[in-house]
This record gives sequence, C-alpha cells and structure tokens, in this order.
Amino acid sequence: MIEKVCIRDRMHNISEYWQPEIAGELNGQYVKLVKLKGEFVMHHHEQEDEMFMVITGCLDIEFKDQPTVTLTDGEFLVIPRGVAHKPIAVKEVQVMLFEPAGTINTGNVDNKLVHQPKND
Amino acid sequence: MIEKVCIRDRMHNISEYWQPEIAGELNGQYVKLVKLKGEFVMHHHEQEDEMFMVITGCLDIEFKDQPTVTLTDGEFLVIPRGVAHKPIAVKEVQVMLFEPAGTINTGNVDNKLVHQPKND
Repeated sequence: MIEKVCIRDRMHNISEYWQPEIAGELNGQYVKLVKLKGEFVMHHHEQEDEMFMVITGCLDIEFKDQPTVTLTDGEFLVIPRGVAHKPIAVKEVQVMLFEPAGTINTGNVDNKLVHQPKND
Repeated sequence: MIEKVCIRDRMHNISEYWQPEIAGELNGQYVKLVKLKGEFVMHHHEQEDEMFMVITGCLDIEFKDQPTVTLTDGEFLVIPRGVAHKPIAVKEVQVMLFEPAGTINTGNVDNKLVHQPKND
C-alpha cells in the first residue's frame, strides 16, 4: 500500500532540533524532515549535493565565498558538493531536506551534532 | 553564485499544464515544478521512483491495485518504479516533482503529453 506523507503532521511529531527524520526514499535519495533552531557548524559534503527547502520559518545559510542566503516558506536552495555552508535559524524553522541515503549531516566536520537519522 | 528558488514565483511564470520545468538539480535528480489540470494517462516508470508533492490544490492519484490517494497542500507521495498510476486534477494543482534526470513523464505510454522539460 502506497501511503502519502503529510508534512505538517510529521513535523508536529518532531520534538528535537537538528534531528532529521526520514519521510520518504526514492532512487537512493532520502526526503528528510527536520526542525532547526540555533547555529550549525560550517561544513561541506565531499560527494553529495544537498537541498534545503523551508516549510515554515526563516533559515539563513552562510557561505565562505558568497553572501548569506535567507530562505522562507516555500523557498529552496541546492548546495553543490564541496561548498562550505552553515545553516542558522534564529527562531525555529521547519525544513525538508533532499539528499542521498547515507549523507552525514555535518559532512566533513566531526561535531556533536552528528547523528544517524531516525527512520519511520 | 548559489541562488535560491521561490516556488511561488516560479509557478507564477508557468502558463501551460502538464509541462514540468526544471527548478533544481542535485545528485542526478531533478526538482521540477508543474501545473496540472485534467486527467493524465495511466502509466508507470520502469526504472525510476517518482515523488509528487502538492504545493497548492488537490491531486488524485489513481492506481490499478489500490484505492486512489488524494494529496493536498504540503502532502507528498512516493510512487515506486513499476507501479502504474494516473494523476487527476479536477481543478488546477501546483506540484513539485522529484525524479531522476531523464525521466519521461508518461513512462511506458506513448502519448501526446510526452515532452522534454524546459530548463531555466
């Protein structure tokens, strides 16, 4: 049975920040949902492009080599592999991520925020 | 320069139904935006899983072997490869698609709705 995912309902059940949950999988890619609040570490992914899409809230993405991009509801950004970036959420923001299965959230950086995503 | 995509703005510029536009690319996958209205053909994709996410509106997905799934704003469905499906939009619906680069929208069916997506 193929079942739909309601992003709002799934977000409602997420209580911890920076802990992406896998909401879908296709073609070796994961769709993840996550709540962010605070600053992440500047990092990059060697092999994976990463997509941030804001569902609700406001997310700043800082870069080393270009001005900060601010995403709000219904906006997304694809960050190519190798590009260092630092997500910052002044207030809680709900985000959908799209990235290959196996991507580690802190990329090249060994940090306490590293985790394995929880599946359904 | 890495630039964000505002889905609402991009949708505003789409005038034709069933003509997905590529809004992003990552890891060999396309993010496409499309407006749908009317009935598509029942079809399947041999090699690709496909994701439908409704931005605004209401989309029915009919199947051969299970009840129809109705998606509304902020809901998505992953359709595994090989599963026949038929999208139906009674009124205009705005949809985001995730699928591998190279996917043909009508899958196994030779139909007048086949097209090559327009890039930026």
